Amino acid sequence: MRPMNALLRGQIQVAPLPGPLVAKAVDEALLEDLGLVGDVTTNATIPAAATARALLKVRTAGVVAGIAVGEAAFKALDQSIVFNARVGEGHAAEAGETIAEITGNARAILTGERVALNFMGRMSGIATLTRHYVNAVAGTKAAIVDTRKTTPLLRAFEKFAVRCGGGRNHRVGLFDAVLIKDNHIVAAGSVQNAVLAARSHAGHMVNIEVEVDTLEQLEAVLKYEVDAVLLDNMPPETLKRAVVMVDGRVLTEASGGVNLATVRAIAETGVDLISVGALTHSAPVLDLGLDFIEN
Amino acid sequence: MRPMNALLRGQIQVAPLPGPLVAKAVDEALLEDLGLVGDVTTNATIPAAATARALLKVRTAGVVAGIAVGEAAFKALDQSIVFNARVGEGHAAEAGETIAEITGNARAILTGERVALNFMGRMSGIATLTRHYVNAVAGTKAAIVDTRKTTPLLRAFEKFAVRCGGGRNHRVGLFDAVLIKDNHIVAAGSVQNAVLAARSHAGHMVNIEVEVDTLEQLEAVLKYEVDAVLLDNMPPETLKRAVVMVDGRVLTEASGGVNLATVRAIAETGVDLISVGALTHSAPVLDLGLDFIEN
Amino acid sequence: MRPMNALLRGQIQVAPLPGPLVAKAVDEALLEDLGLVGDVTTNATIPAAATARALLKVRTAGVVAGIAVGEAAFKALDQSIVFNARVGEGHAAEAGETIAEITGNARAILTGERVALNFMGRMSGIATLTRHYVNAVAGTKAAIVDTRKTTPLLRAFEKFAVRCGGGRNHRVGLFDAVLIKDNHIVAAGSVQNAVLAARSHAGHMVNIEVEVDTLEQLEAVLKYEVDAVLLDNMPPETLKRAVVMVDGRVLTEASGGVNLATVRAIAETGVDLISVGALTHSAPVLDLGLDFIEN
Amino acid sequence: MRPMNALLRGQIQVAPLPGPLVAKAVDEALLEDLGLVGDVTTNATIPAAATARALLKVRTAGVVAGIAVGEAAFKALDQSIVFNARVGEGHAAEAGETIAEITGNARAILTGERVALNFMGRMSGIATLTRHYVNAVAGTKAAIVDTRKTTPLLRAFEKFAVRCGGGRNHRVGLFDAVLIKDNHIVAAGSVQNAVLAARSHAGHMVNIEVEVDTLEQLEAVLKYEVDAVLLDNMPPETLKRAVVMVDGRVLTEASGGVNLATVRAIAETGVDLISVGALTHSAPVLDLGLDFIEN
Amino acid sequence: MRPMNALLRGQIQVAPLPGPLVAKAVDEALLEDLGLVGDVTTNATIPAAATARALLKVRTAGVVAGIAVGEAAFKALDQSIVFNARVGEGHAAEAGETIAEITGNARAILTGERVALNFMGRMSGIATLTRHYVNAVAGTKAAIVDTRKTTPLLRAFEKFAVRCGGGRNHRVGLFDAVLIKDNHIVAAGSVQNAVLAARSHAGHMVNIEVEVDTLEQLEAVLKYEVDAVLLDNMPPETLKRAVVMVDGRVLTEASGGVNLATVRAIAETGVDLISVGALTHSAPVLDLGLDFIEN
Amino acid sequence: MRPMNALLRGQIQVAPLPGPLVAKAVDEALLEDLGLVGDVTTNATIPAAATARALLKVRTAGVVAGIAVGEAAFKALDQSIVFNARVGEGHAAEAGETIAEITGNARAILTGERVALNFMGRMSGIATLTRHYVNAVAGTKAAIVDTRKTTPLLRAFEKFAVRCGGGRNHRVGLFDAVLIKDNHIVAAGSVQNAVLAARSHAGHMVNIEVEVDTLEQLEAVLKYEVDAVLLDNMPPETLKRAVVMVDGRVLTEASGGVNLATVRAIAETGVDLISVGALTHSAPVLDLGLDFIEN
Repeated sequence: MRPMNALLRGQIQVAPLPGPLVAKAVDEALLEDLGLVGDVTTNATIPAAATARALLKVRTAGVVAGIAVGEAAFKALDQSIVFNARVGEGHAAEAGETIAEITGNARAILTGERVALNFMGRMSGIATLTRHYVNAVAGTKAAIVDTRKTTPLLRAFEKFAVRCGGGRNHRVGLFDAVLIKDNHIVAAGSVQNAVLAARSHAGHMVNIEVEVDTLEQLEAVLKYEVDAVLLDNMPPETLKRAVVMVDGRVLTEASGGVNLATVRAIAETGVDLISVGALTHSAPVLDLGLDFIEN
Repeated sequence: MRPMNALLRGQIQVAPLPGPLVAKAVDEALLEDLGLVGDVTTNATIPAAATARALLKVRTAGVVAGIAVGEAAFKALDQSIVFNARVGEGHAAEAGETIAEITGNARAILTGERVALNFMGRMSGIATLTRHYVNAVAGTKAAIVDTRKTTPLLRAFEKFAVRCGGGRNHRVGLFDAVLIKDNHIVAAGSVQNAVLAARSHAGHMVNIEVEVDTLEQLEAVLKYEVDAVLLDNMPPETLKRAVVMVDGRVLTEASGGVNLATVRAIAETGVDLISVGALTHSAPVLDLGLDFIEN
Repeated sequence: MRPMNALLRGQIQVAPLPGPLVAKAVDEALLEDLGLVGDVTTNATIPAAATARALLKVRTAGVVAGIAVGEAAFKALDQSIVFNARVGEGHAAEAGETIAEITGNARAILTGERVALNFMGRMSGIATLTRHYVNAVAGTKAAIVDTRKTTPLLRAFEKFAVRCGGGRNHRVGLFDAVLIKDNHIVAAGSVQNAVLAARSHAGHMVNIEVEVDTLEQLEAVLKYEVDAVLLDNMPPETLKRAVVMVDGRVLTEASGGVNLATVRAIAETGVDLISVGALTHSAPVLDLGLDFIEN
Repeated sequence: MRPMNALLRGQIQVAPLPGPLVAKAVDEALLEDLGLVGDVTTNATIPAAATARALLKVRTAGVVAGIAVGEAAFKALDQSIVFNARVGEGHAAEAGETIAEITGNARAILTGERVALNFMGRMSGIATLTRHYVNAVAGTKAAIVDTRKTTPLLRAFEKFAVRCGGGRNHRVGLFDAVLIKDNHIVAAGSVQNAVLAARSHAGHMVNIEVEVDTLEQLEAVLKYEVDAVLLDNMPPETLKRAVVMVDGRVLTEASGGVNLATVRAIAETGVDLISVGALTHSAPVLDLGLDFIEN
Repeated sequence: MRPMNALLRGQIQVAPLPGPLVAKAVDEALLEDLGLVGDVTTNATIPAAATARALLKVRTAGVVAGIAVGEAAFKALDQSIVFNARVGEGHAAEAGETIAEITGNARAILTGERVALNFMGRMSGIATLTRHYVNAVAGTKAAIVDTRKTTPLLRAFEKFAVRCGGGRNHRVGLFDAVLIKDNHIVAAGSVQNAVLAARSHAGHMVNIEVEVDTLEQLEAVLKYEVDAVLLDNMPPETLKRAVVMVDGRVLTEASGGVNLATVRAIAETGVDLISVGALTHSAPVLDLGLDFIEN
Repeated sequence: MRPMNALLRGQIQVAPLPGPLVAKAVDEALLEDLGLVGDVTTNATIPAAATARALLKVRTAGVVAGIAVGEAAFKALDQSIVFNARVGEGHAAEAGETIAEITGNARAILTGERVALNFMGRMSGIATLTRHYVNAVAGTKAAIVDTRKTTPLLRAFEKFAVRCGGGRNHRVGLFDAVLIKDNHIVAAGSVQNAVLAARSHAGHMVNIEVEVDTLEQLEAVLKYEVDAVLLDNMPPETLKRAVVMVDGRVLTEASGGVNLATVRAIAETGVDLISVGALTHSAPVLDLGLDFIEN
């Protein structure tokens, strides 16, 4: 078992998203919004050569994520746009704080605004919610982790946002870690069969986690070579006993019934990880806006 | 001006999403989750020929949207899957209600589950929130409409979900309607210039809406040929006067400060439309799940 | 009803095509022509470092469209190509007039020539034919509009070319405006049903047009909330009576049997719009060529 | 040199377009027309389960091309559509002749109609124009061939249409044959250098053609190993002398100033090939339509 | 540390590749081979309705991989092709053994042949070479694993082939496992820094491996929480001491200087894993062919 | 028949791959390796602003191919990377020779390294093997040519590598040349039928080759208008007689049983071409590596 090291809850500098992935998503999002014609309003009213200066601001306090995506959106429309980020990914901004200053072709700024904000608002919303959970468990050893309950086609962006919020990423998809649930165990005939089968099929760098609902199941699972156990829907009392039973041999992940009111008690049971689907499936957007300023 | 006809708030049978569009998004979402390897857990533990039967259920009451997308997800993995929808798009389901029954290859059902639920959960979440707004204004003439504050790459799916909830769609993108805001007016020199320019550039089937913040601005706008006015951030009192001033000549859209607590009062001012960004940018997911049943 | 404003037939500065859309089409067109090997002739005979200067000329008089697409084609092969446009989109060029001067890597200019000319020749052919129609109706209030009879995959480029010619765009596709035809009315049971159903399904910014073949049908349609009527295959005499009957309440569009010989008479009936499928489905190419000049 | 064999102008059964290529283009064309919403008119007025029967007819006499593409368009919307072709690709249809009968889901037929007709109309227009040229040279040994002056992204479809018309295809792109023009010769220093360089770079299955403007140039070219000569803009008198000079050693291709009035005289000079850019760049559409019939 | 369980070198039933991924690659490969025209030879000589029966055979003994890919290639051209696999993925075939029987449209079989064989030949070549390595270490505890030295765009197919050969997959890409090399350590300042930084950035299901060249480095690494060590270019003698030093605490991977002559000795040092770049970067194709048989 | 000219085996300057094609493949390869997260190891340990200098070296002697692809890989991650190629495509490098020097952002260099090397290693492996064959036949008139036995999706890159090795390219795909084999002749009824049919269907710039197994078949084929004959699996003695029989009328291609031990004897029979599938299907990678150097 690997203990969560000290850096885990310290100031993590979030690694950037792969550039080609950002470029592809931004292009598709722009085409979605521009259709076959483009921004008729802006093109009709703003002279082609007009320039503008705008401040990208957070309207309500929150954690910023997706700055590089926003920048890419404007630059995909006009490479000469200057996008001056004033904060880094994962920055906890106060209400009204300026995140970036954008200067250049006025049409590009107005036309790209919504795509940039749609990416950044969602990503920042996720980062903000994640940070709330992370703060709620501060001082415990529990890390907040995401799930595969992400928006289709945007998983990369949402998992990045979770990292910006200070959370950690669970597996990327169905392929990079094994998560054995009830149905798998039933089909395999036993926990042992399921674990052995998974160990045989998966690459040696792939970790195995097994979901358990009861302490009896947990006891059974611990006989085999697994890397983590998902303790599903257990009350804190039971979680505490599970942690004792595991005794550091594997990672313990609590899941189910987690919200900002319950997460602290869950963390205090001593589990290593608390996974929260809501981080990516129900985070409200962070309110961002562009303020155009006199030159 | 076109009055909202009687069907508007009646039982609308929602038109399906374009099939090729669904197929493309589902394929990409599956590739996102499957990576280069596939579902290691399921492939290791479930025999290739095993079959299963599962019920797709709503855990909490809500409006269902995306059934055809869910079906497509399973069938993209195994064309012989039988997906038996028990309700239609836009159905208001009770907690625990079964939406569909899925029968066929067990691996395909387990592997496709998350992609199907991720699409449907989000879409149903939007439909549900929309329905709440629609219900809140029942009896008034106001329609609830969406905005361009949608998730990048998923606008088609989210606008469809709004329709499932009983809402109406605002413009699809920057290209199919004109929405003149402050910056456009400033750049064009006057409302008149902006409207005339827009009329010259846009196709004759493209409608023009102008955003106004005050009744003075409204008065100015009404001198020109516009189809709708966006009354931004006006208190109900002002909205009421705006509606009187407009007197049915153009569509009136209220926007800003709209939530479930305020929407009724806004609707009772007599506006035609109330646009709610939150429908698509902040709707929590609807909790859906798959229950596997004994054959 | 919205009157066509004065700008309509004045000098319209055509708004540019969305950049990401141009880039995508140009890349695909180059790959189509280059295959897996590239321009064998040029690569075999022209030194890699050779430079050239070429003038892009119109061989026969016509209206230029697609300059930005041509530029993109050369630059996709070599970003350092200098493409100096001497005229704007929509410019009416005389035979022999130079449209642009292209300087830079000789291979890139020779290899990109055909793709650039194929785009520009077609687009300019459409712009030119459109301008002929526009000129033919000069002094009347009729606008020339296109249809959905465009080349598959190139609708954006062809509708842009129509704008360059001084025409206006009808709906972009099946989704941004309603056009109710015979089959729809039959299936819906009545014009009323069809119009009401369309109003219920379509977004509030979506306009509705109904096709009619007779004045009786026209009379029936005018009872409902529609935005335009398509007067199909009516002789000028009938069109005139239709215009009187409509009396400015909705836009009137003449369609069918339109050619350069008949269009003036049709325009003089007082219709607002004349749609011409031939603009995009049968315009001959405008003859453009590249003249290489001594440095 | 290879003589044109007897089959050349006989009844050629045209080989089908690659299936995956058709599927891809049809999907993209449908998405272009359907946008993010679909066919609002049809979906609003035609019941989902309604069926229809329609006859696909030629309005004016012409050569049919693209039947398989039309079929694919309907089936991409509903796999159960029955598309009954009554004629084959390349069939010379009389005005009013039924090409195919289409039965099945009414929405799919109405929604797919325009995409199907846009492909087929253009392709049939090209096939028809080609057939006119082919007929005009009947009895001579000259074959009518196309050029690279095709619509970007649609070259496969247009070259197929030329084959349907009885024409032959020139090279597919810049990569599968060498065509040495003036600029190449100048850069290479001499015809000899250019031909040798091309022979060195190109695969051994790649043919080489050289463009000449005068008989002196022709004489020079014939000293080297080339497969064809393009005799550019020569009057029939000169062409005749060129054919004599070539004496069957290489293929002779006449080009420039070719139209239906001049093509016969050109063919009678004895050239092997006459290339006509207009086949693909300026063919008007063939008028096709769908007639819905009572069941 | 996780011991390699008993199933590892038993008969592993290889999990299939994700279907949408196979479909996409097969379509692209067919388009690559068919170009804009298709199989001219087959289309010219084989009647459209002709059927054929062919046996897919291994010419020289080897391990078969890619059967599902081959099947997909034929079916992408004609869905009614019957592809009867006689063996499973990973089957060790004798020279001359029939792998599958293919019946149906003759054109589809001939046209799809090369794409099917190109996929299967390469994949089977990799599976065969892998099996040789796996057999060479039989009886030891060492597993044979692949690397990221795969053919660009085909990693999924090549890693699948390794599994078919009985090998195990190392990480899929740069994202699903950490592999700390010299440069990373230098930049981080120390092994400790590098490991801690990696632990902080990577998801909790992501394993960490560190490359070491000497036993001194190994000793240093073992102080930190890592999951595996890559023992680079160590002679068997040193490997043996490394294994003793590790004493089962982490996975040990030998790398460098591995070939069929040396692999046994390396395996006998007791390492857990031996990674072999040659599996995917230098495996010769397995000779497969299609024999057409009389019906 | 066209004789192979003198340049054929001289120093051929290889024409570059089409730029848009390289860009597309490199982007896809990077996304394959980076997944949704990116290079976790590098991002965790290397500061974002760190720079590095690295030498790209050949570890074992060989012919270099794919330099432009490698450069594109690094620049796709960071446009400001300076990639200084010291040799040209097709250069025969000695063991240890530096091919290029790469300077710039350290993360981009480390992250792009594997994709760049995977492309270049494979391409250089093919070029190297080709060069061995080319050298083995030096002094004879035989050219070494490739086949369609290429890696799916990478044909452009592999045929380019063959050119870098001094080989020549056979047809690109099924569409740009006719290759009539046994099955085609049987279906067509006779060689004559097959050749005539091919001549009728294929464009006039498309060459025809017929495969023969015996001298009798060869004699039959030579009666018709073909451009090349593929002499399949004939021993040198028979090849010699075939060459005499052909007497320069068509290109002669030997195929089957070709390896480095046999190729010289085959070349000395006087055949024009020797096709070697192994060039692309079984070439081992050329060992390339990046050496990071102190600044």
